[in-house]
Amino acid sequence: MPADRIPTSPVSKRAGAFDSSGIRKVFDLAAQLEDPINLSIGQPDFAMPQPACAAAKAAIDGGKNGYTPTQGIAPLRDRLEADARRETEQPERRLCVTSGSSGGLVLTLMALLDPGDEVIIFEPAFVMYRPLVEFLGGRCVVIDTAPSFQIDVDRVAAAITPRTKLMLLNTPANPTGVVVDAATVGDLARLAESRGVTLVSDELYRSYCYDAPFSSPALHSDRVVVIDGFSKSHAMTGWRVGWVHGPREIIDACTMLQQYTFVCAPQVGQWAALAALDTPMDAPLAECRRKRDKLMAGLADRFRFVRPGGAFYIYPEAPGGSGGAFAERAVVEEKMLVVPGPVFGRADTHFRIAYTVSDAMLDRGIAALNRLAASFD
Amino acid sequence: MPADRIPTSPVSKRAGAFDSSGIRKVFDLAAQLEDPINLSIGQPDFAMPQPACAAAKAAIDGGKNGYTPTQGIAPLRDRLEADARRETEQPERRLCVTSGSSGGLVLTLMALLDPGDEVIIFEPAFVMYRPLVEFLGGRCVVIDTAPSFQIDVDRVAAAITPRTKLMLLNTPANPTGVVVDAATVGDLARLAESRGVTLVSDELYRSYCYDAPFSSPALHSDRVVVIDGFSKSHAMTGWRVGWVHGPREIIDACTMLQQYTFVCAPQVGQWAALAALDTPMDAPLAECRRKRDKLMAGLADRFRFVRPGGAFYIYPEAPGGSGGAFAERAVVEEKMLVVPGPVFGRADTHFRIAYTVSDAMLDRGIAALNRLAASFD
Repeated sequence: MPADRIPTSPVSKRAGAFDSSGIRKVFDLAAQLEDPINLSIGQPDFAMPQPACAAAKAAIDGGKNGYTPTQGIAPLRDRLEADARRETEQPERRLCVTSGSSGGLVLTLMALLDPGDEVIIFEPAFVMYRPLVEFLGGRCVVIDTAPSFQIDVDRVAAAITPRTKLMLLNTPANPTGVVVDAATVGDLARLAESRGVTLVSDELYRSYCYDAPFSSPALHSDRVVVIDGFSKSHAMTGWRVGWVHGPREIIDACTMLQQYTFVCAPQVGQWAALAALDTPMDAPLAECRRKRDKLMAGLADRFRFVRPGGAFYIYPEAPGGSGGAFAERAVVEEKMLVVPGPVFGRADTHFRIAYTVSDAMLDRGIAALNRLAASFD
Repeated sequence: MPADRIPTSPVSKRAGAFDSSGIRKVFDLAAQLEDPINLSIGQPDFAMPQPACAAAKAAIDGGKNGYTPTQGIAPLRDRLEADARRETEQPERRLCVTSGSSGGLVLTLMALLDPGDEVIIFEPAFVMYRPLVEFLGGRCVVIDTAPSFQIDVDRVAAAITPRTKLMLLNTPANPTGVVVDAATVGDLARLAESRGVTLVSDELYRSYCYDAPFSSPALHSDRVVVIDGFSKSHAMTGWRVGWVHGPREIIDACTMLQQYTFVCAPQVGQWAALAALDTPMDAPLAECRRKRDKLMAGLADRFRFVRPGGAFYIYPEAPGGSGGAFAERAVVEEKMLVVPGPVFGRADTHFRIAYTVSDAMLDRGIAALNRLAASFD
């Protein structure tokens, strides 16, 4: 090795500015605990549907191991696009299959954002939103939705500036489980369109709506970009298949950007996803709802929380006031993993519980949570 | 819909500046031709190895359909990292499993580049390099390697400025098939290290070396970042599994960035890849070499080209002087698809032939190419 090694870090300033995800710290902690009560994992606990598994194996046997078209295999893309056109009654809507909903989010932000553009996000928010926007040179304008976790459209209107390029809506929401009511969703879509702001709707949890049917903002404006995927709806998180649909010019830009980044979603996963579309998921979703109800009942005496109408999370206020301190005590005293609020935004007032676990684990969790809360009395 | 629709495009300036890949235009053309002589496809024509297929199916049966750790499943990551450490004799080298080598390239560039940084690329170059660098705000400093397609290290030294952040080496090269000789590779690695520039070595075609063993620049400097994958070596292009290894701080940054972008490589594909590592690939690689030799012999009379020591491409000078015009005549007169030089850089002097096709297709191609060349006599 030459002696004149340059001592400064080669890592870019913008990458160096990233905080590693707080969720990862929880996972690392989890790996060290024996038999923890793990309420931190954001994925379904039911199995990927058998017809999807069978389709994946048939695709392998059929030698479908090569690249697909950038926009996805025709039967999957056409089917999803037809479904999106039918639901929205927008026959011009375009769709591109992506590498999970995360891939759809990355491509959408790449397609829309220039440095200096502003993005309205609602905190607490999914962990990817802020870092991705900031990596791309955008600036997050944060609307704090606590304590109701509902959206005040007037506050959104007041937050729009000439630099506002898009707003990121996620309903049902991670981490709160809150579903934005249909009237507000419509108002938000119309506001965005009238102000020339692209509303990006992350609908990954749309199949998890327990108290009212899901209502997409895309029903109210053909400018809305929708991100969705098979990870949560069909327990296919490891397959990386999702999609994005919206106005043609935006989706064409996403497709073009996919050529230079993700190339295509994994082919075998796309065939599995096609089969998944025809698999009824009512039974596992009913199970998920039952666990939500059980958890709400189990926490009702000692925790304050907004009723989560969807997703598979509940987001209680932390006894003692700090989500971080509560999560730390949960690990130390109860070998229990929950995700503290600062992972999802600036506020440290709450913590996230994911209830996609066995009933036995959920029972242990409810008991441990109540013991911890009692210690604050 | 409100009447005050904003008429300007919502697509970002930097995305709007992208040219769609010329390769895609060739594919679209190919889709319209009946029984074309298709010499444009950059993927192996042998099947994904059976043990890898079997491992994929076993993973599905084992319910391995969820997220993996960001850096990849432990058995695959550990195995690849141990191999990289052994080959380079660098026990500190770190490795992260990525979504194909393209995923590794995207993460590496995100981890290293800040806006305004310069990147040295060698043209003709793989189609992703320039657009990705420019999307990230970097500036490409192009070294034209024609007509030898070898690298002149003195010219590289002269191209380095205080803004130079990295150089992108690809050997064996797409599109030329040229393998940079071992001495030059060593000189380049030492030059980069001594000047504080990160050498990124795209080694996706390293298993396709016909005339001399592959030699990585990472053997000569522990600062080199290596990108590789299973797509070409094991005919797994549709599975999106690759990796990146290098200095710890860079790979840690890649891993952190993967959390916010690709999330993880597809899990089932990772299990398939692990099995692929133990599958001997000598037979299909020998077939590929035989096709190279057959094509070189078939073109020797009427075409000028640099002997391609690796990959599965040959890059002849275009009869008549224009690769674009030649490729167009190939489609119109011979229903033959080749990729014109401008897809890979500024020069329009050459065109790319991929010879991973059946012998019958190769024979048709050789005949058609010679007929076209004869028409220029």
